Amino acid sequence: MRLPAPSGIVTLTTDFGSVDPYVAQMKGVVLGQCRRAVLVDVVHELPPQDIGAAAFVMASLVERFPAGTVHIGVVDPGVGSARRVLGVAAADAFWLAPDNGLLTALLAREDARALVIDVDALGIRPASRTFHGRDVFAPIAGRLAGGTLGFASLGPRCADPVRLAGPSGSGARVVWVDRYGNLITDLVLTPGSVCRGVVAAGREAPLVGCYADAAPGSLVSLVGSYQTVELALVGGSAARELGIGAGTPVQAQTSRLDTQDQDGR
Amino acid sequence: MRLPAPSGIVTLTTDFGSVDPYVAQMKGVVLGQCRRAVLVDVVHELPPQDIGAAAFVMASLVERFPAGTVHIGVVDPGVGSARRVLGVAAADAFWLAPDNGLLTALLAREDARALVIDVDALGIRPASRTFHGRDVFAPIAGRLAGGTLGFASLGPRCADPVRLAGPSGSGARVVWVDRYGNLITDLVLTPGSVCRGVVAAGREAPLVGCYADAAPGSLVSLVGSYQTVELALVGGSAARELGIGAGTPVQAQTSRLDTQDQDGR
Amino acid sequence: MRLPAPSGIVTLTTDFGSVDPYVAQMKGVVLGQCRRAVLVDVVHELPPQDIGAAAFVMASLVERFPAGTVHIGVVDPGVGSARRVLGVAAADAFWLAPDNGLLTALLAREDARALVIDVDALGIRPASRTFHGRDVFAPIAGRLAGGTLGFASLGPRCADPVRLAGPSGSGARVVWVDRYGNLITDLVLTPGSVCRGVVAAGREAPLVGCYADAAPGSLVSLVGSYQTVELALVGGSAARELGIGAGTPVQAQTSRLDTQDQDGR
Repeated sequence: MRLPAPSGIVTLTTDFGSVDPYVAQMKGVVLGQCRRAVLVDVVHELPPQDIGAAAFVMASLVERFPAGTVHIGVVDPGVGSARRVLGVAAADAFWLAPDNGLLTALLAREDARALVIDVDALGIRPASRTFHGRDVFAPIAGRLAGGTLGFASLGPRCADPVRLAGPSGSGARVVWVDRYGNLITDLVLTPGSVCRGVVAAGREAPLVGCYADAAPGSLVSLVGSYQTVELALVGGSAARELGIGAGTPVQAQTSRLDTQDQDGR
Repeated sequence: MRLPAPSGIVTLTTDFGSVDPYVAQMKGVVLGQCRRAVLVDVVHELPPQDIGAAAFVMASLVERFPAGTVHIGVVDPGVGSARRVLGVAAADAFWLAPDNGLLTALLAREDARALVIDVDALGIRPASRTFHGRDVFAPIAGRLAGGTLGFASLGPRCADPVRLAGPSGSGARVVWVDRYGNLITDLVLTPGSVCRGVVAAGREAPLVGCYADAAPGSLVSLVGSYQTVELALVGGSAARELGIGAGTPVQAQTSRLDTQDQDGR
Repeated sequence: MRLPAPSGIVTLTTDFGSVDPYVAQMKGVVLGQCRRAVLVDVVHELPPQDIGAAAFVMASLVERFPAGTVHIGVVDPGVGSARRVLGVAAADAFWLAPDNGLLTALLAREDARALVIDVDALGIRPASRTFHGRDVFAPIAGRLAGGTLGFASLGPRCADPVRLAGPSGSGARVVWVDRYGNLITDLVLTPGSVCRGVVAAGREAPLVGCYADAAPGSLVSLVGSYQTVELALVGGSAARELGIGAGTPVQAQTSRLDTQDQDGR
């Protein structure tokens, strides 16, 4: 794989919230290494220590940013322990995170190249054992973004990065609940498939094209912002309406079922 | 009207909140079109689908940014439907939003020039029908900011943009409640007018010059950050104290009333 | 003291929250003075009017940003009154804030140089008496960051800046609670000292190296992200577990106590 040239853009995904100066301290360090860096906050309000949520958000950045962007993800319950630090080149971008599964979606890509970052060899001496976002990830990101450190110099190849286990059992399920209470699923409609909706928590959500296709208060499904099927309550919160969240199974209603329904009843 | 040269600054006002990667995805797309863009978040915590609140915030940006800034507003319950997409040049800036009333204050300006954006003709093929912030507004904003697309090329003139209806009835009222619980009204003190305060919810709020002019716990009114009269509780929340919010009428106490009071009682 | 050249970076620390356009308006004004400014949000969710919290956050920025950065702090209950406006050069950076104690930690530094900003003489005519963040601090910060205004030209030396009183009584205490519920103290472990933990609210928190050194649910203490001792509940919130917050005294357990315990029982 050819590596992209650095774009100078650095994104930050953390569970640091908005009441502490932690994110700003990271940015100061990045700017110290690369004054021209463009810093983009992704999400900092991830549930504390929720690696799965962080992994979902990191995956959502693929192909949304110019080639050569450096994406930092820090949800890091093992900070300061022997857990490794990963650098991954994938999808024309660079990804930095603790080796705890946060980059699972990136590692699944054919073009992924994972390195164990040799922090010591890079001359980085963390000032803390609790804040590698600032003391390890930020200086490395700044140097990558500024082109003063090449990806290949980060460290040796990583043969066994930690990956999050997928859900047990087969079938589609809710993988994320967004601010509006939309229930994002991992169900992808393949071209040619005919789907008339999904069922979740015993409720039918007919497939529509966009939110405005149904009356306020309707429970619908549609191909949403993640290019997967999501359930939405028009003008309200599907999550609240159904009382469900990430992990809940959903069933697609194919046109075959549709036909049966119409024939059989 | 002469159009300003693009400043490279892009502001974002949405109801996307802070728990999803939606805003970051928009920024990635803007940067893909204009690497030197300067991105400024305005508010993302607008109440979901609250077009009136978004319209208020957009209006507050007038004359606060360098000429040629591109302001994006996305509160968009009709996303993916036939609702149009507007580009407005006004107040030495460019404004992009769904045609749902969000730009009402800008459209009311004499210098406003409104276009219906011809998304198809611009070669934009939205990847989703649920997220035009990312798939329509962001690429257009990036191209405007970078100067690779001129405002006049966005599409044909819009003769009938959607405008929010003003409040029914005359008289001043509360139009916004800020973080501190200050009650922002639309009451403007004209030069030469003499006002000794306002009444809201049956409570008198004497006019002062600044918060520190009255003792903690006092209910006061003053010409605030929006250059209109606001009610404040010194060191506390006027909204909580009075139990009122946007829409509540307020009465100005002019010096004439003052005189009558003193004479008549 | 030699003053650093401006870095073009401007940080913002306020209690303006995330539901109003106040912070964005400030940024627009900074960019109007310095188009190349890099704007970094520190914290805007400070408790309204909490000068002590703001002072803590400002102190946390020391040495985290490139030399010549302009740091603005606006928690300003006295806005519009006769309270003065301070400019401080310290720690290779520039600090702007109302003269209300917000810069106490900076003023305590030997290298600090404090000026009373002569707003009038700088040609600044605030549009409001309620929002000096936008009308006073932002234009000055933009001019400092852009190099069109030198620090020494801000105004006369300030001999008596307002400083926050330290806590009464001696001994270490909790000074901050972060998003995770970690209790940050002002206890610094001096090299050579031997500490086996701290006691707070009658509970012992043994000293560990990092969060992962103890089992989930353990109450521990460690040298944290502020280089001081903090109490943490592994995988949870120490603040909730102990029911305490900023101001609570803590006692260090030195090795001497440890020895006594082992000998005496």
